[in-house]
Amino acid sequence: MTKQELIQQIKRKKSFLCVGLDTDLAKIPASLLEEEDPIFAFNKAIIDATKDFCVAYKPNIAFYERYGIKGWQALEKTLNYIPKDCFTIADAKRGDIGNTSSYYADAFFNTYHFDSITVAPYMGKDSVLPFLNYDNKWVILLALTSNEGSKDFQFMTADNGEKLFEKVLKTSSQWGTSENLMYVVGATRAEAIGEVRKLVPDHFFLVPGVGAQGGSLEEVVKYGFNNDCGLLVNSSRGIIYASNGNDFAEKAAEKAKALQQQMEVAMKERQFI
Amino acid sequence: MTKQELIQQIKRKKSFLCVGLDTDLAKIPASLLEEEDPIFAFNKAIIDATKDFCVAYKPNIAFYERYGIKGWQALEKTLNYIPKDCFTIADAKRGDIGNTSSYYADAFFNTYHFDSITVAPYMGKDSVLPFLNYDNKWVILLALTSNEGSKDFQFMTADNGEKLFEKVLKTSSQWGTSENLMYVVGATRAEAIGEVRKLVPDHFFLVPGVGAQGGSLEEVVKYGFNNDCGLLVNSSRGIIYASNGNDFAEKAAEKAKALQQQMEVAMKERQFI
Repeated sequence: MTKQELIQQIKRKKSFLCVGLDTDLAKIPASLLEEEDPIFAFNKAIIDATKDFCVAYKPNIAFYERYGIKGWQALEKTLNYIPKDCFTIADAKRGDIGNTSSYYADAFFNTYHFDSITVAPYMGKDSVLPFLNYDNKWVILLALTSNEGSKDFQFMTADNGEKLFEKVLKTSSQWGTSENLMYVVGATRAEAIGEVRKLVPDHFFLVPGVGAQGGSLEEVVKYGFNNDCGLLVNSSRGIIYASNGNDFAEKAAEKAKALQQQMEVAMKERQFI
Repeated sequence: MTKQELIQQIKRKKSFLCVGLDTDLAKIPASLLEEEDPIFAFNKAIIDATKDFCVAYKPNIAFYERYGIKGWQALEKTLNYIPKDCFTIADAKRGDIGNTSSYYADAFFNTYHFDSITVAPYMGKDSVLPFLNYDNKWVILLALTSNEGSKDFQFMTADNGEKLFEKVLKTSSQWGTSENLMYVVGATRAEAIGEVRKLVPDHFFLVPGVGAQGGSLEEVVKYGFNNDCGLLVNSSRGIIYASNGNDFAEKAAEKAKALQQQMEVAMKERQFI
């Protein structure tokens, strides 16, 4: 999917919501466990219920990988089921030396047909470039994450005053363009989103941490919104586990719709739609 | 596998060689492509040929993941085939927020029965701890990698003069012990191995980059060897692709044996064996 196509979808659906498919057999309704493929059955119901309110789906690859071959089969079926007008994100946090990264890119872009993959920056340029060699595919590079451990290294300050996450942004923004490179920018520190926005004014941000992790949508929009919207705000547990009863899909739709409506208001206020 | 068991294997086999199973259908002998599972057929022959000369095997997960379900099946068969006295490393470079990391740990430690997994440090403590919660399982954390891109961020210098890779070592060595935590330390800068050794005197290092990437075994031993040996030196392409003809296994054995013999000399010189 191109940047223009993504922006069109955001305008059409009046939403920049990404639904995280962190599908966990211990959390889905017990009735689904009798299905042949409970993970896919759950995802299918969630996708049917939320597809009008979101522009992206983000399967968290660990949740599939842990179930071995059955998990990968469920992932493949899920990818095939997601409507083609939705942007798909492999939340995989991969990254390795060049030829290895090229094989991860092959796995997620060719074998599973994702539009994008999250990548960790520690190994530098040649670990990221292979993911950028695909037309209409995207790298979503970790910059500032939303977890407690983000403080351990990401805020390390260089002798010139620059923090590690700032160095990652400045350096990596030379490797790609805002047409094939986005950043993970956590929502738990909304002001930090503003600092990141100054460094990379044109790039889309994938923002986790709204909802379950405590971030506020309003603050994210205040600090992160740009002329192209520039935001994909993810919610996983807050939507997909809104209920663990047989009304899980209905409740997921309600939660997704509520977020979509807040997003619609925010975009109208900014005359984006 | 415990640290003491690993040291015993090193002494018994007079080797601290790790064979990297970067198995690529484009590089294995054409005759194997007719097998039902060419990847496993290749790995089986390589394991048979090299198991007397090495103490560890390191499948590079990207090479399996790219082939989808067939790749994972080949990986599972390979893990089941590796002799139980060999240490196994999932070279996966994973790492994510806590509950996600716990699922990656589940995948590699429970589903595939690896002894260890390589982990990227960017997301900090809570992304690494879930991998350390297993008895006799290991994290091998990226510290200083052997690729060109290692210069982009790993040598960033803080206002107190500390480099990022040094901060990663100092900080993370508090999260585990030398009984469940090793480090990836690239061989392309042998002096740097000495700097790392000073910071973490007791930990094992997984050293890639000897051979194809230009590192010298002699230098690695000079700077990295400690009282427990403390080294697992990996060679992938230099061994498994020593020949692309039908003598590939024989040639792999020769290459592995040559490295084992150099290691034996080095360990005898240091009166370790």
